[in-house]
Amino acid sequence: MATEAPSERTRVHRLPERGDYDRATIDQILDEALICHVAWVTDDGEPRLIPTIHVRVDDTLYFHGSRASRTLQALRAGTEVCVATTIVDGLVLARSSFHHSMNYRSAIAFGTAREVTDHDEQLLVARALADHVAPGRAADARPPTDEELRQTLMLAIGLDEASSKIRTGPPKDDEEDLGLPIWAGILPLAITPGTPIPAPELDGGVPVPDYIRTYGRPGAPE
Amino acid sequence: MATEAPSERTRVHRLPERGDYDRATIDQILDEALICHVAWVTDDGEPRLIPTIHVRVDDTLYFHGSRASRTLQALRAGTEVCVATTIVDGLVLARSSFHHSMNYRSAIAFGTAREVTDHDEQLLVARALADHVAPGRAADARPPTDEELRQTLMLAIGLDEASSKIRTGPPKDDEEDLGLPIWAGILPLAITPGTPIPAPELDGGVPVPDYIRTYGRPGAPE
Repeated sequence: MATEAPSERTRVHRLPERGDYDRATIDQILDEALICHVAWVTDDGEPRLIPTIHVRVDDTLYFHGSRASRTLQALRAGTEVCVATTIVDGLVLARSSFHHSMNYRSAIAFGTAREVTDHDEQLLVARALADHVAPGRAADARPPTDEELRQTLMLAIGLDEASSKIRTGPPKDDEEDLGLPIWAGILPLAITPGTPIPAPELDGGVPVPDYIRTYGRPGAPE
Repeated sequence: MATEAPSERTRVHRLPERGDYDRATIDQILDEALICHVAWVTDDGEPRLIPTIHVRVDDTLYFHGSRASRTLQALRAGTEVCVATTIVDGLVLARSSFHHSMNYRSAIAFGTAREVTDHDEQLLVARALADHVAPGRAADARPPTDEELRQTLMLAIGLDEASSKIRTGPPKDDEEDLGLPIWAGILPLAITPGTPIPAPELDGGVPVPDYIRTYGRPGAPE
């Protein structure tokens, strides 16, 4: 576990033992989490927040959307953003209402949004986004055309200012509450796939790919 | 479906058919979602973002934390916040990389944070938070003491400026891609509970409560 925060605003102040500044830990959370939330400040000084799909490639975090999106247009010109991803691993039920908690892994990154304009990088990001959603999908899907890439706005931030915060383990009740006849413990939670639903027009001869049949988020701990 | 956005900043511009301003729809998303993300602007004009547990009570959205938390302290004094909750219902796999999407339900609310200082409202919020996490839990857990309430900072915003955005249904590929031999469809995703893990010191005679044994988020559509 890296003990040094890369900046003051990434430092975990409250319960600092939950903070982790190690890039391997941060990367694992970013890779496993399906979506993130992106916050920024409008020209009028108001907070804005959108959920979106992201993908990490090495030291860069990408997100994208339609170039027709007013939201993404507002983000384009060197806007400072704060990105958070949060994976809920379980409910932590203590005897006391006060000590209830969650087991979770969250990562937060700060950065200035850069627009991806290089054609090769755009293709790489398109592939990476498809594989982030379903590892293996990029090799199967019809790749984007140049016109489709022109309609897509891709944004990037570096990961040099990021941190993670993690809670694991059982509830921590006060000593005097341990004997109360109240159930306490953890209820694990996980995102699980259901049965794939083929598109209405799909040729019945096209099988469900292995990466969908046995879907799981990459790197989820045992 | 309410067709009028309560304000310009809550209006869904991109794909407006996905926007819904009906409070029943917004409430259902807020109630089902376990956590939210809260964004605000620092005194220096920087964006900040935290994941946190929330609960809706009638027309008010509450979140809370330790009074020792510098994050929540920064939020206390009438700060304008933007709160988002996002439920991912499934992956939408199109033949083309470009038309990949997600099925999701998200709600966004804007408001000015108010500190909850009334003792009765604090007790109500503490109960509501416990029941938001696990419906039925408030009746079982040891209620907060006055000292525990003093250590807790509770914040509230009204829900008069909120909107939701929803995507459902199959992928929408271009006509000319429909015949490609690429699997397309939906992979449903849901948060599912695992086996409850009792706290190490728990008296073996205390049974797992029904609301944990048969846990599910309230109001999740069939």
